[in-house]
Amino acid sequence: MPFALLMHDPLAGTLMLLALLWLSAKLGGELAVRMRLPAVTGELAVGLALTALHRAWALFPDVAASPAMELLGGLGVVVLMFAVGLESTVPQMLKVGAASLRVALVGVVVPMAAGLAGAWLLLPKGSPFVLDLFIGACLCATSIGISAQVLREKGASDSMEGRVIVGAAVIDDVLGLLVLVAVSGLVSAASGGALGPELAKTLGLALGFIALALTLGRLATPRLFQLASRFRGEQVLLPLGLGFAFLLAWLGNLAGLASIVGAYAAGLILEPAHIMDLEHREQHTLEELVHPLVTVLSPLFFVLMGAKVDPEALFQPATLGFAVVLALLGVVGKYVAGYGGGRGVRAAVVGWGMVPRGEVGLIFVAAGAQLHMNGVPLLSAEAQAGIIGALLLTTVAGPVGLGWVLRSRG
Amino acid sequence: MPFALLMHDPLAGTLMLLALLWLSAKLGGELAVRMRLPAVTGELAVGLALTALHRAWALFPDVAASPAMELLGGLGVVVLMFAVGLESTVPQMLKVGAASLRVALVGVVVPMAAGLAGAWLLLPKGSPFVLDLFIGACLCATSIGISAQVLREKGASDSMEGRVIVGAAVIDDVLGLLVLVAVSGLVSAASGGALGPELAKTLGLALGFIALALTLGRLATPRLFQLASRFRGEQVLLPLGLGFAFLLAWLGNLAGLASIVGAYAAGLILEPAHIMDLEHREQHTLEELVHPLVTVLSPLFFVLMGAKVDPEALFQPATLGFAVVLALLGVVGKYVAGYGGGRGVRAAVVGWGMVPRGEVGLIFVAAGAQLHMNGVPLLSAEAQAGIIGALLLTTVAGPVGLGWVLRSRG
Repeated sequence: MPFALLMHDPLAGTLMLLALLWLSAKLGGELAVRMRLPAVTGELAVGLALTALHRAWALFPDVAASPAMELLGGLGVVVLMFAVGLESTVPQMLKVGAASLRVALVGVVVPMAAGLAGAWLLLPKGSPFVLDLFIGACLCATSIGISAQVLREKGASDSMEGRVIVGAAVIDDVLGLLVLVAVSGLVSAASGGALGPELAKTLGLALGFIALALTLGRLATPRLFQLASRFRGEQVLLPLGLGFAFLLAWLGNLAGLASIVGAYAAGLILEPAHIMDLEHREQHTLEELVHPLVTVLSPLFFVLMGAKVDPEALFQPATLGFAVVLALLGVVGKYVAGYGGGRGVRAAVVGWGMVPRGEVGLIFVAAGAQLHMNGVPLLSAEAQAGIIGALLLTTVAGPVGLGWVLRSRG
Repeated sequence: MPFALLMHDPLAGTLMLLALLWLSAKLGGELAVRMRLPAVTGELAVGLALTALHRAWALFPDVAASPAMELLGGLGVVVLMFAVGLESTVPQMLKVGAASLRVALVGVVVPMAAGLAGAWLLLPKGSPFVLDLFIGACLCATSIGISAQVLREKGASDSMEGRVIVGAAVIDDVLGLLVLVAVSGLVSAASGGALGPELAKTLGLALGFIALALTLGRLATPRLFQLASRFRGEQVLLPLGLGFAFLLAWLGNLAGLASIVGAYAAGLILEPAHIMDLEHREQHTLEELVHPLVTVLSPLFFVLMGAKVDPEALFQPATLGFAVVLALLGVVGKYVAGYGGGRGVRAAVVGWGMVPRGEVGLIFVAAGAQLHMNGVPLLSAEAQAGIIGALLLTTVAGPVGLGWVLRSRG
């Protein structure tokens, strides 16, 4: 009778994997910090290394394929964006609204044009124009998680530049969604699909969610949390606060936005005045209570992002060259966007902060892999690896550049 | 082109479920607190209600079948036991060792004898003696998570009684393992399996792990965490502390113990003196940092435990009667065990603290469902539901009784 199997906890392997990931993430982060890079760069590199190790010796756990990591890493970036939202208020964000809008617009148009030009130059002649357009679109949307982490590390989350970056990234997300719908529409235009109504519906849903969250949400939350402050049970602030964030993340996703946008909106909406009673009773602010969750979960997200890159596909000379050129165009495009911030905002900080592309770009690639032109997939395996490589390079270049310009301040 | 699907985050449903669970767990806990019951009772009831709702309207999410809840709830009880371990030190535990050992021994022998007698009286004549023995065995092992939560709620975790309870529960776990191997051995004795060597191996592994953790572990941790205190990166204490706990949970499970025993041992081993430098630099103690994780994750564990009970199987009159009798015998058996604590230890507190049976009992039932006597499963579906019902009743009776005797002190 194999009794050991009877007591075997199906969770045990996950516990071991988590212990390994925390240890290696912290070691990688430490190495990065000693090389004067942001810790998150080290965590991304650890993920890449773990996948390479798994490919070499199958005994090594496959981080990228672990459903537990998918869940915990996904929760990590949602909680991170909630924490970033908590550091600002709606009025503060509205103040930087115009600057964010300019940064977002420039940051979508320029990288898209640059990416389009790059793809047109590098791809074999005769490849469809929509493909060039699609590759340009993949360079649009900033992955705010990484910059948010660097800004937190450097204590610059609630600076003017920090707010412009996050605001622009939220607008980015809406614009990225529109570009994706437009490009998909162009591809299916041959089959007679109507583009206009789809675009209008997408835009309406996304903007409607943001408007409702920032108005109705701000009216309702003080009442809700005042009700909760009459609870006699203990430890209600954090579960209710997180529950609120996750609810908005879910609703935002229903409206077609990335979950992190809703979580960020929840953080913006929740203001100290609403939850003062609860914070006082529990002797900790909500920010203090969320902080350990971010500490534990967000490294898992960054390791997972690194782990998702296919090292074999990436390290082909042709793919690598394509990726490097795309990434360069992407960096330059976003750097230029930094100047959209206007006076009193350090363009280099904003520009570098917008450089990382990640989740949204990966969603684009996944979507592109499903699109077909005349029965042929729009994105070949090589094109996919090249784009993913470019995204990865921006996730490394972004925090390095941002860390560098933030340090040069002090 | 269904663009909404392109941006659909596979995590969104989980985010919604988590928001729902936190809200309902806190509401259930609040109701319980207002009825002068421990909050955890309300959380268990919420789980039961959610499963009943899912059975009635399939639209309602099936909490018990969600892999995300399985993971997060499982992490919840591991983190909870780590936090409980952090509240005590090894010398403090050794001081109550003799009392814990007596409580554990009485608490295994008496409920087992009572359960055996009850099964013999209630089950149809002619059912095998091993079945009666097996049902008795299911009543042995205390589920410490629930009592640990009640002790925390009442601020009694680091009382003498609190330590005796947790210590006895750890010993319980080892004894329970032995009983399971012995009963399984008796069942397979007909096919000529040797019982002695198996028992010795099991005991050796489990005791070996505990001895190594408390000796080698205590020697190594100060050095490890001193090394970590030289890290320049930030926020290393919590990931490394948790990583250490999860590593020991995994190792303990390899040695045949429940994961929570290893996590508890990790908490015991980590003493303030070892991590002082890190705690000082990060301006928070490890206990403070772990606390929000417990707040968020442990309600998920208790809701999940409630959700796992099959309401239809439970609410059959015959099953219910069998469950009530078994539960009564189980309560009395553990209550008697409280007197094993000896002088200066309040027997009623310890006794009620030992009453809840949960995970380990459920593991027994799962194991029993796989055992066969002459080609027939040892445990019928009705017997399974009855035992699970009895376990559930003890998880409700335990915190109610413990809350009651703890309140009657002040």
